[in-house]
This record gives sequence, structure tokens and C-alpha cells, in this order.
Amino acid sequence: MTAPFDFAPLLAPGTPAPAVKWNGFPKYNFIGGHNDAKHVPVDALIAAATSVLRREGASLATYGLNSGPLGYRPLREFLAGKLKGHAGIDCSPDEISIGIPLEGEGLRLDALKEKLEELKKKGIKPKYIYPIPTVQNPTGAIMGEARRAELMNIAADYGVMIFEDECYSDLIWDGKRPRSLYAMANGEGVIHIGSFSKSIAPALRVGYIVAKWEVLARILALKQDAGSGALEQMVLAEFCKQHFAEHVPKLSKVLAAKLQTLREALAEQFGTAAEFGDPAGGIYLWIKLPDNVDTQKLAQAALAAGVSLNPGPEWSTNKDYARCRLRLCFANPDPETIKQGVAVLAEVCRREFGVPLRSANVDRA
Amino acid sequence: MTAPFDFAPLLAPGTPAPAVKWNGFPKYNFIGGHNDAKHVPVDALIAAATSVLRREGASLATYGLNSGPLGYRPLREFLAGKLKGHAGIDCSPDEISIGIPLEGEGLRLDALKEKLEELKKKGIKPKYIYPIPTVQNPTGAIMGEARRAELMNIAADYGVMIFEDECYSDLIWDGKRPRSLYAMANGEGVIHIGSFSKSIAPALRVGYIVAKWEVLARILALKQDAGSGALEQMVLAEFCKQHFAEHVPKLSKVLAAKLQTLREALAEQFGTAAEFGDPAGGIYLWIKLPDNVDTQKLAQAALAAGVSLNPGPEWSTNKDYARCRLRLCFANPDPETIKQGVAVLAEVCRREFGVPLRSANVDRA
Repeated sequence: MTAPFDFAPLLAPGTPAPAVKWNGFPKYNFIGGHNDAKHVPVDALIAAATSVLRREGASLATYGLNSGPLGYRPLREFLAGKLKGHAGIDCSPDEISIGIPLEGEGLRLDALKEKLEELKKKGIKPKYIYPIPTVQNPTGAIMGEARRAELMNIAADYGVMIFEDECYSDLIWDGKRPRSLYAMANGEGVIHIGSFSKSIAPALRVGYIVAKWEVLARILALKQDAGSGALEQMVLAEFCKQHFAEHVPKLSKVLAAKLQTLREALAEQFGTAAEFGDPAGGIYLWIKLPDNVDTQKLAQAALAAGVSLNPGPEWSTNKDYARCRLRLCFANPDPETIKQGVAVLAEVCRREFGVPLRSANVDRA
Repeated sequence: MTAPFDFAPLLAPGTPAPAVKWNGFPKYNFIGGHNDAKHVPVDALIAAATSVLRREGASLATYGLNSGPLGYRPLREFLAGKLKGHAGIDCSPDEISIGIPLEGEGLRLDALKEKLEELKKKGIKPKYIYPIPTVQNPTGAIMGEARRAELMNIAADYGVMIFEDECYSDLIWDGKRPRSLYAMANGEGVIHIGSFSKSIAPALRVGYIVAKWEVLARILALKQDAGSGALEQMVLAEFCKQHFAEHVPKLSKVLAAKLQTLREALAEQFGTAAEFGDPAGGIYLWIKLPDNVDTQKLAQAALAAGVSLNPGPEWSTNKDYARCRLRLCFANPDPETIKQGVAVLAEVCRREFGVPLRSANVDRA
């Protein structure tokens, strides 16, 4: 036997607590942005993998697939076309770079100007503003063009860049969306990011940046990894060229139906105790429960009953405001599981916080 | 027209210079760890992609493929078996995590103890020692078991962890390798990393960490991304289970032959002006030229003639020592290209530095 090595003294102060071992997904899984398993386009992905590997498999022998550090060129070519048609963005494949990490944070436009003014007085110049203008996470809101123009004026006034995250923008029920900020600004002062995680499959780790070459050249100079996985880029490029246009509305239809199932289940189980909107796209519903509900405690109790949910404070910088709010991802569970999961959640919430009342399905108003 | 946005004031001081646009690989490409294009197992990868997607494609709808944050479980299962047979490592799939960035840095064991003593006197405790014990980059050296034991004793004496990088260890001409440091230490005080980039295809971005669960739990707690691309993990797992054992010796044989082509070409073109060893594995040859050759200048002149090479200072912390040294990757160019590339390199070197002499192929000794 070798003596155990004590690595604890080597850890930096403030290192997070150890992770717990993975025990599988909970039965009612409303977190994390998973998607509909029945609508992963498996056959088309197989055909795409076969044809692209047959044709270009040998290029896997090189880092970057002969396409350079920006990523697989046919995928960038597909994106250039898609972005022009869908988001009004006119860019060349050399203004797109595949591969970037995403993180979610809400943005409140009304407080933005105040904050920028406050920072200016302190002599601090923020690096960028991070909006999700098309199907915001978690609220599902879509920002109109007038408001977009206002946002860009504010940013220009304060000399701040905009980092526009459009990862959900394909999943809109009626397929209509305002032009992207990047398109409206002709790319000046805006960096645009998107992803295939929401529209094709979250397990595919392929996203992209669109920026003017001058900006992208500075980002590339900081890039230290060897890029996104080649197989995923190749198969996606092959699949998307043929199938993206039909796949997305099909998936959106399924998601729109699941959203209505969730809204109906919430109305039935929570009555007026749950307040929520009717988002025009996306995979999330943002819900307000009565003020006495602490959704972080609710999440723990619900998980013990097999229901996972995202408590509001994880998705807002205003922890007090978000305390009684929660986010449910409706894309992954099937309709029957959504109904059962909401019923279990209502039961747990009643037990822990006294709401909803038993007669919740009768409107108390 | 929108006015150009001046983002320069937003850049942090010390931001690297902008990247240049990609113009394709040079004709004689001896850098970057690319591999042999003819030996990418395209057919087997197609078959693997088809069968694994047919069986489990629907799981792409979830982040983490129902396998949790450690990565796709069948791939971890394959690795657990491979590591036991190949490196003498006995670990469970839950002690392996897929996905990690790699960086290359040489290690000199003789200077190690001195350095540790010096740091100790200053009250500094280093986090870890980073060796590549099996087929070191760039020298191709394989550390014997006695020396490995010595290294581990030094590390234990100073309470420092070892971060063992074994990404080249599959590519050994005779298939024989010493037990890994992780195996010799029963995992105590050692973190082991490996990769499929060198043994299957560099464009696949899949690596892995092996560590005791206690250590891995701390690493996982710091992990913020959504893991390696699922398609690559799935296809690799499916491919490796059936083909890894036969693929690696076949590839190694091709690489060993290319190395001999390179060594013969260097002897013919440079004579005694080029000194190099005969590595027992890997994809790189580490070469010393006469002291007056500055390989950073040589690399620039050679690139203009279509030959890319890695100057020594990129691969050594001792810049003076490495000034007249260079690293050539022989895995990607075919034998004829290797011969031509070395001839062009010799010509450039002669023009810039006066060596090798024209009669270089006659031994001057």
C-alpha cells in the first residue's frame, strides 16, 4: 500500500467544495437546457457523418482541418448564409470563429443607463454589455427593434461594446424575429455569438462568434486551445446544409406544444399562485410564486422528490427579486412527465410553504 | 454606413498583437503535431458513428449524455481497461474525466531537486511537477522505471503533486513502455492525463484526466464548461472498443518509418551539422544545429520557402540552450515531402548561416 498523499494544503484558499458523484438525472428534469430526445435528427446525422467522413475524413489528421484557427470552413460558410437570411447579418466566413464558452446572465435595459452613468462617475469603463435580445434566458422575452436601437444608442454614448448572445434565437414559434443588434449596427461595436446546442443537440459543443475581422483578430490572438471538436463541426456542416431549415420549425412546434402543456399543468396545479408569461420561443418558462416561497429551499425539497428546477437567484443579479421565482426547462421531459412533475412540485411546495392551496385549480379571484 | 467603433481603448494593456488571417498550411509542414492523413481510420470511424448514433443518438438531447460531468461512460470504461493493460493503472471509470486542455513544457529532472530546494528556502510551495515521462516532447525520451521512482521520491519529499502527461505514450515503436507514475504511486500524489489526439486524430478534441476520486471531485467543482463534444466521445468509444488495439501498432509502424526517412534526409543534407537522437516513439525529432544558427531566424526564412518548423526556444525554458535547436514533426508529411522539405531547409540554412557546407553529405570527421 502507498501512503495517501495529502493534497489539501496545495489547494488555493476559497477552492469550491468537492463535487458529488453523478447519480443520473432526476425523474422530472426541468433544469439545464436539455432538449427533446425524440427530435434529435439521428438518421440525418448518421447520413451526414458517413458522407463527410467518406469525403474528408483524412483531414482529421491535422489540427484545424486545413481550415485554420477559425474552425471548419464549410460550417462557417453555412453560418454566413444562415445569418444573412435569419438575422439580417451580412458577414464573410472569415468573420466567424467556431468555439466559444457561453454563460447566462440576464440584462435589464432600464437599469443599464443608470449603471453606466454610475460607473462613468467612478471612472470605470465597462468592457461590454451582454444582452440576449432574442428569447432571453430565463424570461423568454424578445426585444423589439425600437428597443434594440435604444440599447445601441446607449452603448455608443458610453463607448461600450455589445456582446450579443443569440443562442436561443432559432427557437421562435412563428419563426419571425427582429434583426440582430449586429445587423442593425453593421457589426460596429457588436460581437455576436450563437450556438447549435439549443437548435440541434446540447451535447454537441459547437458555438460561434461573429465579429468584424479587426475584433476577431484580437480574440484569435488570445485563443490558446486547438478549437472545437472536428467531428462535430464536420457532421454539423454536412447536416445543416441539407436539413437545418426544415429541422428548426419542426423542433419549434414540439417545444411550443410542450410549453403549453407546462402552462396548463401549472395553472391546474398552482392556480393563481404561479404567475408566468407566454414566451414566443425558447426552452424556458420563468415563474413567480407567492412572496413567501424561497425557491432555493424549494429546489432542495423538490429534488428529493425527483423534480429538478433552477431557483431564480441562479438567474438574476437581484437575489431578493428572484427569491420567489424559478426557471423550468420544458424541452426535455415528455408531456406526461411534465404534467406529473408539476403535480409533484405543487405537492412539495404546499408541504413546505403552504401554497398552492388544495383548491388551487379553482381560480381564487 | 455606420461609423467604425473604436474598440482599441477597451483592450487590456498587454493584449497580444492581432492574429493574421489563415492562408493554408505550408508545403513542408513540420510543426504542430499533425498526423499521417492516410492512416486516419476513416471507414472504421464511419461504422462507429453509424452504430453508436443508431443506438444512442437520442441521448444527444441532454448535456452530458446521461453520463454526468465526467464524460461519456462507455469511453471511460474503455479507458479504464486500456490504462490497466497499457500503463499498469488500476482505476475505475469514475476516476477518469474527459476533457481537458494540454500544454507542452519540458522537464529536467537533474535541475528539479535544486529548484525545489531553492523554492523551499523562499517559502514557496509549487503546485505540481509536470513531466512527460513516456516519449517526452520535444526530445522523445522515455524515462525508465528507476528514474521514475527517483522523481516520485523527490516529489514526496517536498510534498508536491505530479501532473503526468502521457499523451504520446501509445506511439512507441516496440509497444513496450514503463509503468506510468500514476500506476507506480497507486495514484497517490499523481494526476495522470492522456489524449486521443496523437493516437487517432489531432482534430478530435478529446483528452482525459485520471485521478483519485478525492482529487477529481475538487477538479470537477472548478469545471465550468459543458464537457467535450458528445459526438467525438461517442464515436471514439465505439471505434476504440473494436479497433484501438490494432490501429495503434499500425500507425506506430508508419511513424517509425517516417522518422527513419527524416533522419536519413538530415544526415544526407546536413551531415554532421545536425545532431539528433533516435527516439523510440512519438512524432517529433529534436535536432541541434551548429551554435551560430538561430533557429527563430531560421524558422522565418524557412517559412518563406514553404518549410514550417518549431524553433527550440518555443520548447525550452532555457532559451540560450535551445537557440540552435529545433523540433520537427515528421508525422504529417509523406516520405517524399519529408526528403524535399529537409533539402529546402538545408539550402535556407546554408544561405542564412553558412551551414551545412555544400559537401555536407561527406562526413567531416
